[in-house]
Amino acid sequence: MTTEELVEQIYKKRSFLCIGLDTDLEKIPPHLLSEPDPIFAFNKEIIDATHHLCVAYKPNTAFYEAYGLKGWESLERTINYLNEHHPEIFTIADAKRGDIGNTATRYAKAFFEALNFDSITVAPYMGRDSIEPFLAFKNKHTILLALTSNPGAFDFQTLKVDHKELYKQVLETSRTYKNSNNLMFVVGATKASFLKEIRNIVPDHFLLVPGVGAQGGKLDEVCGYGLNHQVGLLINSSRGILYASDGKDFAEKAAAEARLLQLAMALELKNRKLGS
Amino acid sequence: MTTEELVEQIYKKRSFLCIGLDTDLEKIPPHLLSEPDPIFAFNKEIIDATHHLCVAYKPNTAFYEAYGLKGWESLERTINYLNEHHPEIFTIADAKRGDIGNTATRYAKAFFEALNFDSITVAPYMGRDSIEPFLAFKNKHTILLALTSNPGAFDFQTLKVDHKELYKQVLETSRTYKNSNNLMFVVGATKASFLKEIRNIVPDHFLLVPGVGAQGGKLDEVCGYGLNHQVGLLINSSRGILYASDGKDFAEKAAAEARLLQLAMALELKNRKLGS
Repeated sequence: MTTEELVEQIYKKRSFLCIGLDTDLEKIPPHLLSEPDPIFAFNKEIIDATHHLCVAYKPNTAFYEAYGLKGWESLERTINYLNEHHPEIFTIADAKRGDIGNTATRYAKAFFEALNFDSITVAPYMGRDSIEPFLAFKNKHTILLALTSNPGAFDFQTLKVDHKELYKQVLETSRTYKNSNNLMFVVGATKASFLKEIRNIVPDHFLLVPGVGAQGGKLDEVCGYGLNHQVGLLINSSRGILYASDGKDFAEKAAAEARLLQLAMALELKNRKLGS
Repeated sequence: MTTEELVEQIYKKRSFLCIGLDTDLEKIPPHLLSEPDPIFAFNKEIIDATHHLCVAYKPNTAFYEAYGLKGWESLERTINYLNEHHPEIFTIADAKRGDIGNTATRYAKAFFEALNFDSITVAPYMGRDSIEPFLAFKNKHTILLALTSNPGAFDFQTLKVDHKELYKQVLETSRTYKNSNNLMFVVGATKASFLKEIRNIVPDHFLLVPGVGAQGGKLDEVCGYGLNHQVGLLINSSRGILYASDGKDFAEKAAAEARLLQLAMALELKNRKLGS
């Protein structure tokens, strides 16, 4: 998918919501556990109920790998369902991969070709030759970890290298990589004020922002610092939507939570006269 | 497996060789392609021919994921074969994973429990709460990327933070993590001289060193800087062994290459009076 198609979808749906499909057998409604593939059954109902309210889905591969072969099958079914029934949706493999040269190319093929995801999250630690193989794929997007939303982000990401935090160096250096126009960045919403400086370094790139809940109330702050001329934000919510109910009404309740976020996003777009 | 059992195996076999199972359908002998599972067929023959010469096998998960479900099956068959027929072997999932909290626990369960690997490689960028969930598993080992052997290593790993390279900060900080005795570190052999300073920071931990080939001639240098009182080194070779021949004699030729490395290692152990 091209960035232009993603932006078009955002304007059409008045939403830049990404739903994280972190599907956990211990949290899904018990009545689904008798299905042949409970994880896919859950994802399918969530997708059917929410696809008009969001522009992206982001399965975290750890949740699927944890169930071995069966989990991998559930991931395949989920991405195939999205690609077949909702080709307008931007799909993100939240895999946080990172390896060198030819090995990186293999990961890229696994996710961009075999599974046909639009994008994948990638870790920056190994540098240029671990990232450029992903960037070489046309109309595919590489979402590089910059500043994550967990406490451990302060262990290394915010250390100063040459009077500048490491995550800023990651933003600056990665912009020099070949095909860097295919880059997006993960920026945690727990540090919304950091978004201002990040926007100065990468004014045009899309940012994937996890850690904004319907209750968090940080959406306006993230939008204030993060929106750019073509929106430039994907805001992710996972558990707040997926597990809004563990009854048979789970999909309906999930849609209600997604609707709250979508309405708030529509308001942000309107206030900033984006896409209208 | 405990570290003591690994060391015992090293002394018994007079080898600290790890064989990287980076199995590539485009490189394996063509006569195997008619097998139901060519990747596993190749791995099995390599293992049968070399297990007495090495102490560890390290499948890089990218090579398996690239083939989707079938690849994942090949990986399962390979690790099951190792655990069943060669339980003395130390197994490494070269997965370079890294994610937060509960998600990290899921990766840990996937590799330590479902697949029953002895260890996994993990990326440090996300910090403490992305690594401690792996360290919590008893008699399982977390091999943290410190200094990798690719050119991109110089993008971030060698940047100075507080007058000290980032990879040294990774070594020092990670030693403060809970259960840090379960840590090992990846240190690329292209920078053998760096091993001296690394050994000062982590005198007791095992180091996994990729990038030493039978031809490279760097083995003595790596041993000089890297060996400690309990060996403390696993030296990996992948392509030099796996693809020594693409004929029907591939396993025999692989064993001959592995034997060369094992003999050189036996000499290093003897010269340093380790385990004798």
